[in-house]
Amino acid sequence: MNLQAQEQIKAFLIEDIGSGDLSADLIFEQDQQSSGVFIAKDDGVIAGLDIAQVVYDALGGQATFLPAVSDGDEIKTGTIIGRATGSIRTLLTGERVILNLMQRMSGIATFTRQAITTLDDPTIKICDTRKTAPGLRYFDKAAVRIGGGVNHRVGLYDGVMLKDNHIAYAGSIAQAVEKVRQQIGQMVKIEVEIETKAQLLEAIAANADIIMFDNRTPEQVAEWTKLVPDHILTEISGGISLANLATYAHTGADYLSLGALTHSVTAFDISFNSNEGEKSNHE
Amino acid sequence: MNLQAQEQIKAFLIEDIGSGDLSADLIFEQDQQSSGVFIAKDDGVIAGLDIAQVVYDALGGQATFLPAVSDGDEIKTGTIIGRATGSIRTLLTGERVILNLMQRMSGIATFTRQAITTLDDPTIKICDTRKTAPGLRYFDKAAVRIGGGVNHRVGLYDGVMLKDNHIAYAGSIAQAVEKVRQQIGQMVKIEVEIETKAQLLEAIAANADIIMFDNRTPEQVAEWTKLVPDHILTEISGGISLANLATYAHTGADYLSLGALTHSVTAFDISFNSNEGEKSNHE
Amino acid sequence: MNLQAQEQIKAFLIEDIGSGDLSADLIFEQDQQSSGVFIAKDDGVIAGLDIAQVVYDALGGQATFLPAVSDGDEIKTGTIIGRATGSIRTLLTGERVILNLMQRMSGIATFTRQAITTLDDPTIKICDTRKTAPGLRYFDKAAVRIGGGVNHRVGLYDGVMLKDNHIAYAGSIAQAVEKVRQQIGQMVKIEVEIETKAQLLEAIAANADIIMFDNRTPEQVAEWTKLVPDHILTEISGGISLANLATYAHTGADYLSLGALTHSVTAFDISFNSNEGEKSNHE
Amino acid sequence: MNLQAQEQIKAFLIEDIGSGDLSADLIFEQDQQSSGVFIAKDDGVIAGLDIAQVVYDALGGQATFLPAVSDGDEIKTGTIIGRATGSIRTLLTGERVILNLMQRMSGIATFTRQAITTLDDPTIKICDTRKTAPGLRYFDKAAVRIGGGVNHRVGLYDGVMLKDNHIAYAGSIAQAVEKVRQQIGQMVKIEVEIETKAQLLEAIAANADIIMFDNRTPEQVAEWTKLVPDHILTEISGGISLANLATYAHTGADYLSLGALTHSVTAFDISFNSNEGEKSNHE
Amino acid sequence: MNLQAQEQIKAFLIEDIGSGDLSADLIFEQDQQSSGVFIAKDDGVIAGLDIAQVVYDALGGQATFLPAVSDGDEIKTGTIIGRATGSIRTLLTGERVILNLMQRMSGIATFTRQAITTLDDPTIKICDTRKTAPGLRYFDKAAVRIGGGVNHRVGLYDGVMLKDNHIAYAGSIAQAVEKVRQQIGQMVKIEVEIETKAQLLEAIAANADIIMFDNRTPEQVAEWTKLVPDHILTEISGGISLANLATYAHTGADYLSLGALTHSVTAFDISFNSNEGEKSNHE
Amino acid sequence: MNLQAQEQIKAFLIEDIGSGDLSADLIFEQDQQSSGVFIAKDDGVIAGLDIAQVVYDALGGQATFLPAVSDGDEIKTGTIIGRATGSIRTLLTGERVILNLMQRMSGIATFTRQAITTLDDPTIKICDTRKTAPGLRYFDKAAVRIGGGVNHRVGLYDGVMLKDNHIAYAGSIAQAVEKVRQQIGQMVKIEVEIETKAQLLEAIAANADIIMFDNRTPEQVAEWTKLVPDHILTEISGGISLANLATYAHTGADYLSLGALTHSVTAFDISFNSNEGEKSNHE
Repeated sequence: MNLQAQEQIKAFLIEDIGSGDLSADLIFEQDQQSSGVFIAKDDGVIAGLDIAQVVYDALGGQATFLPAVSDGDEIKTGTIIGRATGSIRTLLTGERVILNLMQRMSGIATFTRQAITTLDDPTIKICDTRKTAPGLRYFDKAAVRIGGGVNHRVGLYDGVMLKDNHIAYAGSIAQAVEKVRQQIGQMVKIEVEIETKAQLLEAIAANADIIMFDNRTPEQVAEWTKLVPDHILTEISGGISLANLATYAHTGADYLSLGALTHSVTAFDISFNSNEGEKSNHE
Repeated sequence: MNLQAQEQIKAFLIEDIGSGDLSADLIFEQDQQSSGVFIAKDDGVIAGLDIAQVVYDALGGQATFLPAVSDGDEIKTGTIIGRATGSIRTLLTGERVILNLMQRMSGIATFTRQAITTLDDPTIKICDTRKTAPGLRYFDKAAVRIGGGVNHRVGLYDGVMLKDNHIAYAGSIAQAVEKVRQQIGQMVKIEVEIETKAQLLEAIAANADIIMFDNRTPEQVAEWTKLVPDHILTEISGGISLANLATYAHTGADYLSLGALTHSVTAFDISFNSNEGEKSNHE
Repeated sequence: MNLQAQEQIKAFLIEDIGSGDLSADLIFEQDQQSSGVFIAKDDGVIAGLDIAQVVYDALGGQATFLPAVSDGDEIKTGTIIGRATGSIRTLLTGERVILNLMQRMSGIATFTRQAITTLDDPTIKICDTRKTAPGLRYFDKAAVRIGGGVNHRVGLYDGVMLKDNHIAYAGSIAQAVEKVRQQIGQMVKIEVEIETKAQLLEAIAANADIIMFDNRTPEQVAEWTKLVPDHILTEISGGISLANLATYAHTGADYLSLGALTHSVTAFDISFNSNEGEKSNHE
Repeated sequence: MNLQAQEQIKAFLIEDIGSGDLSADLIFEQDQQSSGVFIAKDDGVIAGLDIAQVVYDALGGQATFLPAVSDGDEIKTGTIIGRATGSIRTLLTGERVILNLMQRMSGIATFTRQAITTLDDPTIKICDTRKTAPGLRYFDKAAVRIGGGVNHRVGLYDGVMLKDNHIAYAGSIAQAVEKVRQQIGQMVKIEVEIETKAQLLEAIAANADIIMFDNRTPEQVAEWTKLVPDHILTEISGGISLANLATYAHTGADYLSLGALTHSVTAFDISFNSNEGEKSNHE
Repeated sequence: MNLQAQEQIKAFLIEDIGSGDLSADLIFEQDQQSSGVFIAKDDGVIAGLDIAQVVYDALGGQATFLPAVSDGDEIKTGTIIGRATGSIRTLLTGERVILNLMQRMSGIATFTRQAITTLDDPTIKICDTRKTAPGLRYFDKAAVRIGGGVNHRVGLYDGVMLKDNHIAYAGSIAQAVEKVRQQIGQMVKIEVEIETKAQLLEAIAANADIIMFDNRTPEQVAEWTKLVPDHILTEISGGISLANLATYAHTGADYLSLGALTHSVTAFDISFNSNEGEKSNHE
Repeated sequence: MNLQAQEQIKAFLIEDIGSGDLSADLIFEQDQQSSGVFIAKDDGVIAGLDIAQVVYDALGGQATFLPAVSDGDEIKTGTIIGRATGSIRTLLTGERVILNLMQRMSGIATFTRQAITTLDDPTIKICDTRKTAPGLRYFDKAAVRIGGGVNHRVGLYDGVMLKDNHIAYAGSIAQAVEKVRQQIGQMVKIEVEIETKAQLLEAIAANADIIMFDNRTPEQVAEWTKLVPDHILTEISGGISLANLATYAHTGADYLSLGALTHSVTAFDISFNSNEGEKSNHE
């Protein structure tokens, strides 16, 4: 996990622990040892296995996590995800932050995998959007990758997306692309959002790096992708859910973006059972 | 919005904007003015209306948001939530953070309201848990309140929750409660998680402030709450979803906690339409 | 020590060291080893023994502190509190922050113990207030516990205190308590401040969790506590010092809060004597 | 107040308010206006008058503080220190941080003034040490100046203090001063701590900038200062309290440092009375 | 200026001011007004004009800066850059941070402009590298743009650069590009560093987005660019200074990167003359 | 390296790495080991050798740096500066921040050494100014010391510098010095900037601690220093470059300050060659 994410995890722990874990601190002696297992309570894709050790280290390094599976593995209810050993205070005080983050990441990875399976067209990659939980972009985007998807731009700073209002202000797609192209460096790509065939042709003529078909039917996408030269990438976006996702298979696009990967996450249920085999999954 | 939350919103903006909004900065002049409306694309409960102005202020105060509804209002698809006026750069650069946060909060508020309606028993309050998105506890818990629920403890520091492993280590419920009671101040409550009638009676004898019925059937809850004296509060928890929530009505408990209020949030869809009435809801 | 407090100690070190400890850095070689002892120069209760190692670790972990007593011990002038060994730069550069914090905490613990002894009534617990040094609440409140006291609420967020202006605005004690009770969760207690017998009866009728007798005489307290049912806690507050504290013994209250525990702290004198037995206690 | 101190005040507010002021937020409407007065409950020197407005601004700028006295004024019990007007939530939520800081600063200023009066020798300036509350050095040292004292070095970075262990390691006072002098810039002064006449003569020969008489009697100081050339400053330090302070008058030193100015602060009592003239000084 | 950069400027001010500007605070009254002019002492390109107002605002907003030129203007020694009016304390306390940053940015912009003029081939854009001063990347890269250059990737996160060790480990250019392409999203470009014609052909075959000619002669570049298809960009890098820059004109590449733009900056001299026309440019 | 500088290095790494090093993370396995050497590509003075290990530690401690030379050593092109061994991801991800900082520091140290050699008068010490890169003062000033220079004041807080506008406002040099002297502590020095002989005599009469000859000729300096008593230090400043530096030798001043030491730094070229002996110095 990168340095920035590790610093964030410290902040997440401080948010939960504040001035102290009253329950654990008042009951247990500091050197009381224990162990426990993280167990899946759902079927799906596990993600975020490196979080537990980072949490234990931030709390003073008095516990160790040994994963029993790998990020991206498809696991079943009852699968042991990993084992933790160490100070019982550390295990209990860190439990909720680990679970909250691992469950969210696994939920995202699971949904991403499901989208890939549903689409069932490996020539179209599933990608995320900037519709992540504020402050959690690193974790949300990592989970999409673990699920098998790829990441759209990380933020407003690492890619240009020209939408209707940018284009209207610049005068035309051609003028908007040209205006930006003059100012950006070689590593930045320009994506243009289009809704009509006329706009599509304009975007091709402007040599956009990526063309996004916004809220288009599978038929339109299939017809329009044929008009796009090989070196321009295409992306399907807008109005897509698991229900209609498969209808976009074999439409010839390169990417399909799904805001729901990260904006509406169903937590993948995991419980931490401490040593006596007791479940401690409730608040 | 409190100071801590405002500081967090700055961090959320920096996460998204980083070294700059390439698209807006390269296309628009700094003093170009515009306006737009935030429109509901779902039916539900709106929450987080104060976010927009905080975002605009953090970006330099060059835009103004006027809400058209109030936090907690039930609104319909198509309802205008509010109007924003000001620098088009500010409007576009701040749009995604506002939407990500407002959509999450409105999703939580909507689900909370739905839970209250489904339960249909005003004597049992719906409450949240610590299963919030890391870093977003303030916003998640505020949304629960706006939805009509109440907040369980904020973190590990402002309430004691004695679970099986605390109790096992202390020796008994009575010993665990007594050990904690000796050390805490007058403002801290002790909640004890129980699963059997014997434990219930022990918790009552120990004079716990709150007793949590963990994963119990409605019948058990209904029978057991009759045994609890008035000054001890009771809480239903574990294994509850919208599907079986109503079966817990009129069981005599005081609170019912639902992790799903915040761990599996379905974003309430909102779009920001800039001045020409064009939609700009996609990544 | 919890994570948040450890992060604060880094800030305290940066405050004192800034761009560098000119004296130690210019005189000593980086690998020069030394040792020293922390010695009490007062009689009282020691607190904050974990600070030294946290400071040494923050400075790079090149020194070790071995405590010779335990937090809460009553020690005498001349008692060796602990021994430190390691890089002389680390020992000297960290010395002042350790002493400033340990002396303050020990001063608070000593005064708390003295208050308990003076009151000489174990049925009334001594508690602190929010009158702590800004930024030091964690340390101040930890010291009170080490001294044998308990903590009142940590901040404005973990307990409700209804004073005259809240009550006046709400209309009555009953209305104020009811208004708050409707909105808070099950873990939050409501304390009501009263000054007259009429208010006391109102607070009892409103079923406040705690009733604070504000600036009342021992006689009033003794008379009024008899009227309060068992499940409501009572607290004496206001106008109390060591001089009149004992007069409140056996008045039947549960808690007695003393702002002076933390707002007017007399440092417990400790000196760090480096290896030649030389004292280095002056600025 | 400087930028760094203003940022610290934000942290102090977050420490106290956390996720919200339950009492004020649940009782008062956001736009309820009020006013109040800050009143002295002690005789002494007021300090920290700029804190109130900085606090109100950090909370959103919805209240105004108008001071009725000036920093450094000697005031009496009952003196109105200033008036505050604005949102009652802002007034109550900010009250405790303002009072905690202003009371500490006024306590320091009062004690400093008392020390000056007790010494009654304007040729000897009273100065502070680094024995400040961790994190509060800026405020503690500002209060000393307001009380009429001057500040010793701010931290380990802006002045060299050679004590016995530095000197022992370097070989002699001459060698220690020379070693440092070779490496420091022109703006840094070197102070040498001495305990014997032999050391004094060594320090003079080494041309130290300042010589500190450590734990010396008034007679020794009076005799030794006569030996020190005009361009070398002298400082009395160690073992001084209000009880024996006056005995050091007219001993010819330039400075007298008192750790007690900041390590053992008696808060100067101030209460904030909101509009109906009600006192809200507890908890 | 974006939010992140504004927060950094606060940190720069705290670095310089610390516990206070002794000189200004001890001499001037708080409300003493003044004015002054920023004057160029060099010929070159001005950059960073928005810094002054951000600094004054961070210091409390008691001074106003009115620019007399625009970012990117070529100015001469003696040109008035802008006028500042307000509290003299604010003007003097903020002066050094403004000058340090504006002089660095103007130095970078001036050198960038000089490189463009020297190259004298508008078909080859001058770009920067990651060789910026740590912590100043935003400002350094903004200055390059103001000078007329473009920005290479901002950091390790927004572009892939495959160098010899990446390629060696992956097995070949083809394998390295393919391995990365499988995992990245649509907005990320892959640049491949090559030194031989064989590598060039490999990179073309692998369909790299950008090919960097590392330390190649103008002749090699001219010959090799002819082999590169239109949709692949080319970049010259390594061993280039103002002395040999012109020899790369008309070699057919798209970009030429110059580490010296930001790693070896000659400050553009600017002085701030306060109201009596006195110069205050020295430490 | 002190704690504050170490925290800054974390921020520098986050600036460069952000959400991840795409190139290293996508190509290399986490446990792939490697090694490499840092090699000088210039002749000069090396500085900042402790940076590499601090960077590796901040990235997780999976690499080790062993220096082959010492800070302050004069080295030649081709000299091996040190060897690094460990995770190849750590080596590559940390490389640019290490080089950017070490090259800047070595550039400053080299220029400082060159200035000392050029001046060729050990009785006049070369010192820096506050003209450092914002945020890098600690590193810039450390490099000056490593080069053999000394540091002028660190910031506005640790020394008083009275310039023309301070003096004009106070009325005269005597009044300005007196006004400040009354308020500062014993560790703070007062430097007065003078341009005429009359001002010089005034500054001497006012007993300034340091007198700065601002933009004076070597002849003036030589004549004027004779008038200054021994206990007052003198400093030459303004308008000095390597070209005219030697003319100030033997003028009798104590210090000569050079803004160019830090405001216009030529990076000392260093390359990091990973294990196959391949150079990876670009971008």
